[in-house]
Amino acid sequence: MIVEKRSFTQPEFRFGISGRTLPVTVGYETYGQLNAARDNAVLLCHYFTGTSHAAGRYAPDDPAPGWWDALIGPGRPIDTDRFFVICSDVIGNINANNPRVITTGPTTIDPTTGRPYGCRFPIFTLDDMVRLQRDLVISLGISRLVAIGGASMGGLQAFTWARRFPGFADRIFAVAATPMIRPYGIMVPNQLGIDAIRLDPAWRGGDYYGHEPPNQGLLLAFKILLMATRTDPWAEALCGRQPADPTGEKWPAPHRGFDGRFKIETEIEATVLARMQFFDANSYLYIAKANALFDLCDPGQDLAAALRTIATRTLMIIDASDLLFTPAHAAEAMKYLPNADTFTYDSGNGHLSALFDTQHFAERLREFLR
Amino acid sequence: MIVEKRSFTQPEFRFGISGRTLPVTVGYETYGQLNAARDNAVLLCHYFTGTSHAAGRYAPDDPAPGWWDALIGPGRPIDTDRFFVICSDVIGNINANNPRVITTGPTTIDPTTGRPYGCRFPIFTLDDMVRLQRDLVISLGISRLVAIGGASMGGLQAFTWARRFPGFADRIFAVAATPMIRPYGIMVPNQLGIDAIRLDPAWRGGDYYGHEPPNQGLLLAFKILLMATRTDPWAEALCGRQPADPTGEKWPAPHRGFDGRFKIETEIEATVLARMQFFDANSYLYIAKANALFDLCDPGQDLAAALRTIATRTLMIIDASDLLFTPAHAAEAMKYLPNADTFTYDSGNGHLSALFDTQHFAERLREFLR
Repeated sequence: MIVEKRSFTQPEFRFGISGRTLPVTVGYETYGQLNAARDNAVLLCHYFTGTSHAAGRYAPDDPAPGWWDALIGPGRPIDTDRFFVICSDVIGNINANNPRVITTGPTTIDPTTGRPYGCRFPIFTLDDMVRLQRDLVISLGISRLVAIGGASMGGLQAFTWARRFPGFADRIFAVAATPMIRPYGIMVPNQLGIDAIRLDPAWRGGDYYGHEPPNQGLLLAFKILLMATRTDPWAEALCGRQPADPTGEKWPAPHRGFDGRFKIETEIEATVLARMQFFDANSYLYIAKANALFDLCDPGQDLAAALRTIATRTLMIIDASDLLFTPAHAAEAMKYLPNADTFTYDSGNGHLSALFDTQHFAERLREFLR
Repeated sequence: MIVEKRSFTQPEFRFGISGRTLPVTVGYETYGQLNAARDNAVLLCHYFTGTSHAAGRYAPDDPAPGWWDALIGPGRPIDTDRFFVICSDVIGNINANNPRVITTGPTTIDPTTGRPYGCRFPIFTLDDMVRLQRDLVISLGISRLVAIGGASMGGLQAFTWARRFPGFADRIFAVAATPMIRPYGIMVPNQLGIDAIRLDPAWRGGDYYGHEPPNQGLLLAFKILLMATRTDPWAEALCGRQPADPTGEKWPAPHRGFDGRFKIETEIEATVLARMQFFDANSYLYIAKANALFDLCDPGQDLAAALRTIATRTLMIIDASDLLFTPAHAAEAMKYLPNADTFTYDSGNGHLSALFDTQHFAERLREFLR
């Protein structure tokens, strides 16, 4: 499946917290065909470090497809023979330096100053992300969605949709996500990652554009994130207690000093460094903040009351080995969600199984969308 | 129980990895009386941020007793009517700026330069800690111990004793510790904490003495540590999603920007900041490194073979809610340890229950020492 990036601009997007109004452009992709009745659309929402490239390739020789390619396509669980699938970047997408990410965020030039917004960009929430998606969907002539879903932060967006725009979608599904972020989740990985980036002197209060970016802080933030999204057995199977380099040439042995490396550290770092050229540290701050602020409750409302308002048919798909969104969280949500099911599997690989072990839940998702 | 700090100096202590020989002084405390046969001694080993102040108070108006005071004293599980209890600081104790911590480490003046060692102090391991404890114990005329035990890193030291000096102790007990650190445990909290401190420009390669210390890096390292040693339900019960300051005077509300704080963050920070004046960042690096390097295996030996050599009667006490040393780790160790029992409880509070919820295992420990 060959795909291309599209662009939608909302010239006057109003940010909820600050009330500021800015022009916002967002990149998106679509897979499959919109039918004549415009009633076969499915909206996918991406995860923390993801983009709107959910499926397909930009060219036949593209080395890797989109992040949920295994689930999206003709005859696949999110079946492009039936559905018109839309996926858009979130505001402030972390991959701001990827030339295919054209979405407005802290790296965007502020038209009033001619310089990047940096940390003068407004704080935004998942409510803002979802309102922008709604503007996009409506611009396509679509007033009702078959389903909205996604993994991790994408699942949180699906819950936000159901809470803020009831009836717009017939179904929502959340993989590796529950409708609440607990104080532990505020900290890990979000606030700890914010701390790590701000600690790097290269961050310069967010005004590092044109200078060396705060890559050490960003690397630490992502290491915290990646450890929280994997598991102890996953790490043990990957590398045990091996040193990064048995020869000691590239990395000193761990006992040789503070530059010494175990393989677990270089493995984690390699995952980040492979994509680091695309990541923007300020964008990380904003997305981490948006996750920490995720909250379906109106002021003064408790979680039970907020969840009871979500009448949309809901499926939570939870990995028993997930440290961030746990079966216990899902069980608590089930007490209040009036129309929800939970499907639980155990990959042993943690939160990231939502992206890399989709075979565990592909058929359950197909059934939910049938 | 009024206690006092004592001091032991080994003028020529040889560090295992580097082979360097340095004078090393260590602070220690004792509780109860050594009997005439000198055969009633119990050695306690302290945790990551602990000291040798395991029990009692330095003065009647001392606000808080030692860290395991609930377990140590006349009639208590570690019964000072029966036992002579010894607890010594580890080399490089993190509380180097506490006037009662007199133990050699990175803050010590190098006699050859007249300046603090800083990161020129030799990398040390738990094997070194234990050899120094052995020198201390032997200096007291004791050649056999009733038991050796401790919590977390203290339990790792007990395993190291049994592995390196078989027969010296009749029993070992390890609370919130198993005889291995997995790659996940290498990273969380150890290597991530090392990264955080080194990221702080105030660290200056370890030569910050006489300057502002790297307190922001140290704070982030401890926040990572504290999150790993607690649990999601603990954090939820403590503060939920409350802001740090409902008035917004001391801290902006979380949605107001990157200085905004949730209560979970200020609660975690308060725990660290209350003791921060005593903490030394370089000492943190060394202790984190020692934990990451913890390994009972000889070169090329696998864990099973190493554990099969530990004939000492062993008790592991494990909290089912502990994220760092888990029931699964204990179950694996039980396959190989020839003479071990495991007692499991579930406080819901995570790793730190070993210090704060001792009622869960106090009677099991009493029975083990009977």
